[in-house]
Amino acid sequence: MDKLRFNIAISLDGYVAGPSQSEENPIGIGGMKLHEWLLPLASFRQTHGGHGGEVNASTQVVEEWFENIGATIMGRNMFGPVRGPWGENLWRGWWGEDPPFHNPVFVLTHHPREQLEMDGGTTFHFITDGIEAALEGAREAAGGADISLAGGSSVARQYLGAGLVDEMELSIVPLLLGSGERLLDDVCDLELEQLRVVEAPGVTHLKYRVAR
Amino acid sequence: MDKLRFNIAISLDGYVAGPSQSEENPIGIGGMKLHEWLLPLASFRQTHGGHGGEVNASTQVVEEWFENIGATIMGRNMFGPVRGPWGENLWRGWWGEDPPFHNPVFVLTHHPREQLEMDGGTTFHFITDGIEAALEGAREAAGGADISLAGGSSVARQYLGAGLVDEMELSIVPLLLGSGERLLDDVCDLELEQLRVVEAPGVTHLKYRVAR
Repeated sequence: MDKLRFNIAISLDGYVAGPSQSEENPIGIGGMKLHEWLLPLASFRQTHGGHGGEVNASTQVVEEWFENIGATIMGRNMFGPVRGPWGENLWRGWWGEDPPFHNPVFVLTHHPREQLEMDGGTTFHFITDGIEAALEGAREAAGGADISLAGGSSVARQYLGAGLVDEMELSIVPLLLGSGERLLDDVCDLELEQLRVVEAPGVTHLKYRVAR
Repeated sequence: MDKLRFNIAISLDGYVAGPSQSEENPIGIGGMKLHEWLLPLASFRQTHGGHGGEVNASTQVVEEWFENIGATIMGRNMFGPVRGPWGENLWRGWWGEDPPFHNPVFVLTHHPREQLEMDGGTTFHFITDGIEAALEGAREAAGGADISLAGGSSVARQYLGAGLVDEMELSIVPLLLGSGERLLDDVCDLELEQLRVVEAPGVTHLKYRVAR
């Protein structure tokens, strides 16, 4: 059975973004500290067009994020900074002409738009009829493979709250942000089963099966 | 150098007690679920006068809580349900005549009281001049061994906020409580260093060095 999988870096006090999110600080003040363990990894750099980098206990975890994924779902704010109607100079994503997804990406938005074919197998589909329609489209496109819920956190919270996420991996960073955006507020009534724990430099990865 | 050590069970969404704490529900509605992994353990039962029980990956963690501890600090609400002045029928703790501490226990309170000697090496000292005085007394009594900060969470938050805790172990339970008492709110400006991670049935133990 295909699964909807979600992973995110989170501070020990539960924040996935710092306070005062803006175009300059898309994950808020201090939010980049949540990713300091990730950026130097070879397995992360390679999927984003880079070279070199470190190999450590996080490597296997990060590689698994990209394995057996047949489609991706994301919120519009993760796709780009444009708000409201798409306008004339159409935004093509943060990732250049060859985005790191290499599969159909379903972007949740209130503003319709033609699909956008990129290099390397990534096609952006713009879905205006809600999270369940996006999941249905992604499931069909994935053809039995899993679906990656790429974020951002408000979309992730909607899927979690609707009981649609099957697996969630939290990368817990030893850091207190003190304020900002919390992942797990108001998504109660989920049953969690601990699947796997990986201790790595500067982070611990906790993977759970999620049910309602 | 002796250390002030603290451990607590916490839900994945950051709560150490459920909502509506009362005398009947001292850790709030649903709060007992935070301890379901602990109560069956042989190493827990033995320190509380019981027999038998399970041995699993949590065993080593729980045994370490009691190792090299020379004194204990706790809040008054952890010592007992009495509020206000101590009255005439003096409360002697939740634990019977042979409490599981076997060392001097410094109870923080606003109401002075004579020290109380129990069986098995536990003596309760009632400290009315604040958390730093209690720590000083505990440190002296411990004679170079570590000091256990036994809770509850409001006292723990005071010590964390004052930068006085040296090591903290969070036992993260795969559970969302949704509301209640959070441990890590308003204790910002702490530096955490990940020391050790133990994956065990129904819980993951994350141990951190704490500095300011």
